[in-house]
Amino acid sequence: MKRIVILGSTGSVGVSALDIVQRYPDRFQVVGLTAGQNWTLLEAQIRRFRPRVAALANKEAAKSLRARSRALGCEVLEGVEGLIQAAALPEADLVLAAILGAAGLVPTVAAVRAGKCVALANKETLVLAGAIVMREAAEHGALILPVDSEHNAIFQVLDGRPRETVRRILLTASGGPFVDTPPGRLERVTPREALNHPRWKMGDKITIDSATMMNKGLEVMEARWLFGLPPEQIEVLLHPQSIVHSLVEFVDGSVIAQLGVPDMRGPIAHALAYPERLEKSLPPLNLVEVGALTFRAPDAEAFPCLRYAYEALAAGGAAPIVLNAANEVAVHGFLTEAIGFLDIPRVIRATLDRRDQKEVRTIEEVLIVDRWARGEAERQMQLLKKSGVSPPAGRAGSQKSGEIPTEC
Amino acid sequence: MKRIVILGSTGSVGVSALDIVQRYPDRFQVVGLTAGQNWTLLEAQIRRFRPRVAALANKEAAKSLRARSRALGCEVLEGVEGLIQAAALPEADLVLAAILGAAGLVPTVAAVRAGKCVALANKETLVLAGAIVMREAAEHGALILPVDSEHNAIFQVLDGRPRETVRRILLTASGGPFVDTPPGRLERVTPREALNHPRWKMGDKITIDSATMMNKGLEVMEARWLFGLPPEQIEVLLHPQSIVHSLVEFVDGSVIAQLGVPDMRGPIAHALAYPERLEKSLPPLNLVEVGALTFRAPDAEAFPCLRYAYEALAAGGAAPIVLNAANEVAVHGFLTEAIGFLDIPRVIRATLDRRDQKEVRTIEEVLIVDRWARGEAERQMQLLKKSGVSPPAGRAGSQKSGEIPTEC
Repeated sequence: MKRIVILGSTGSVGVSALDIVQRYPDRFQVVGLTAGQNWTLLEAQIRRFRPRVAALANKEAAKSLRARSRALGCEVLEGVEGLIQAAALPEADLVLAAILGAAGLVPTVAAVRAGKCVALANKETLVLAGAIVMREAAEHGALILPVDSEHNAIFQVLDGRPRETVRRILLTASGGPFVDTPPGRLERVTPREALNHPRWKMGDKITIDSATMMNKGLEVMEARWLFGLPPEQIEVLLHPQSIVHSLVEFVDGSVIAQLGVPDMRGPIAHALAYPERLEKSLPPLNLVEVGALTFRAPDAEAFPCLRYAYEALAAGGAAPIVLNAANEVAVHGFLTEAIGFLDIPRVIRATLDRRDQKEVRTIEEVLIVDRWARGEAERQMQLLKKSGVSPPAGRAGSQKSGEIPTEC
Repeated sequence: MKRIVILGSTGSVGVSALDIVQRYPDRFQVVGLTAGQNWTLLEAQIRRFRPRVAALANKEAAKSLRARSRALGCEVLEGVEGLIQAAALPEADLVLAAILGAAGLVPTVAAVRAGKCVALANKETLVLAGAIVMREAAEHGALILPVDSEHNAIFQVLDGRPRETVRRILLTASGGPFVDTPPGRLERVTPREALNHPRWKMGDKITIDSATMMNKGLEVMEARWLFGLPPEQIEVLLHPQSIVHSLVEFVDGSVIAQLGVPDMRGPIAHALAYPERLEKSLPPLNLVEVGALTFRAPDAEAFPCLRYAYEALAAGGAAPIVLNAANEVAVHGFLTEAIGFLDIPRVIRATLDRRDQKEVRTIEEVLIVDRWARGEAERQMQLLKKSGVSPPAGRAGSQKSGEIPTEC
């Protein structure tokens, strides 16, 4: 019986994970659940899975839940401190880190520092603090199991193979809903069109990231830390069917790939059950029905976000944090129709160009840079709305850097 | 430095293996080479690689070689006894078993009994005596490394993963040169057309087997023993590009596949170097250039050999031996234009139907059945030529069985 905590249980990954847990009741016991503010769904999950502890980031929501769930024998924690406590729950064997966005960083780090087996669905943990988190994981004996389908694929392929036999890894990308949209049309696409992902059912933020290909950029960054490979050994391959989840090329030219139907429950179930496999957690893949798997190179011109991510990864320091924060702000702006689709890379570019090149050594410093970048991205978005035209696309460092404060 | 013996060094796989050995002189030392009768090529190989021992199955050829190579400090052995001695050479770490056809069985078994690491390119070893050979390998601590691209792919994927996590394996098949030939045309195809394989450069016998799909049937049999899986967990998938070399489906629905450019030097180099990998033994695979990988179900009606192989595997006993012997005789008949392309399955069917259902417990009994089946297949081929029409296609056991003698 594996005792698990789910950080972000009311999100897309969290709900899928509970769906799996429910199907294998002899394997998993839920000991902790956390959410941001959706206390009504969290309450239903508590009634169904009976964890010892629940936590809500929002303190008002925690109060409402506490009033409703007294009889359930579940301790309700609140705020970031509550999430941290749930993440480090002494009896937990595995923590599924599935909080969306930068908010997931601190609780996930808490699970790593508690030496848990961490099933990592939160991209930002490694994007923002890859070097710190991997060092802490090694220090505290925390095993990190990737839940993203691409990284989970690479993890399944590598599984103990010596790193020096790897020549490169190839992350596949469906290309999102606009892979065949003429570049001229992209300026006018709507949130509704962008949310219509052809292959994967995911949350809104990640679906937009998939449409801009920033999702793949963030994944390149994650892969860099998860697998200890430099950016030049990480490539992206367009594969519209999303059947080949990723590939590893070895030094001898042999390539090993992981495939499956495109369903997030596959990698979630793999990470939850590792090193075992859950019988029939996915429907079987029928390649005769699929017929053809196609591959092409990504279009770095039409989708500049991927290029910006490689650039930020190479620059290091504050750059990945600024890229990620500016992207979160810009995607929110697009979803609320404050800016257009192509304004997303514009906001990121402008914010990146305003950063200074500080080293970032602690989680606290990560959070400071993150806060600065959000403010700056908001400012860039306002400028953009005011001017009604895109700001000139500067090059990194070509403008005067913004001042990132050195303390919270 | 790995010391290797190549059984069948003048054949297609043997020559490719020496090509690899030559490119990595700091890794391999050739200590033994054997051939059937091509003593002139063997002499050239001795001059180049300076093995301590060479052996020729043909005694006249051995005499000629001995006269020429006295000054080379290489002991020249002869006959089956000579091949056995070379296969069990005390100083050898790895024996590449690359003799063509049933003639490879006895020397390969000698290497297994000597507890060598055996890189197995000879299909017949497991087709004829899978149960015996795998038992002997376990007893003598011999590791069997498959060299066939399909089995090598499965081996690379499984590499230490627990067998009970495997739901099935999928062997890919290019389908050969006639995969799109209308069935009505098959009766009149020529050896020249059949030898024109679209993807793989191989010896004549295996190229014809690829055209009839018997090659895939023999591979299903090999896989059964190599990986300890029942026939119902082994499937065949047509994949004309021959890029995906085979796939493993795990119980959770996850599929892991090995890919590479279609070049026999890939799996040969893998088996020679295992558990290491040879830097750049193959050119890199460019999936963008390949563009599309397609899959479909094999046509069991147009290519009955594959069906006969599953049938023989299920029947066990003498059936796989008879199937293999009849196929060797029929393919030789086709290559010498004694019979037509569709007569190959007819000869196999008729010979299979004449066998009796003895158990086969020793290598000696295997050889007795093999000899009987060759005679019977020759007889069926004569009948077929005399009648000018195909014999009625009987079902297994539906005709009076032939008498297989119980001693040599």
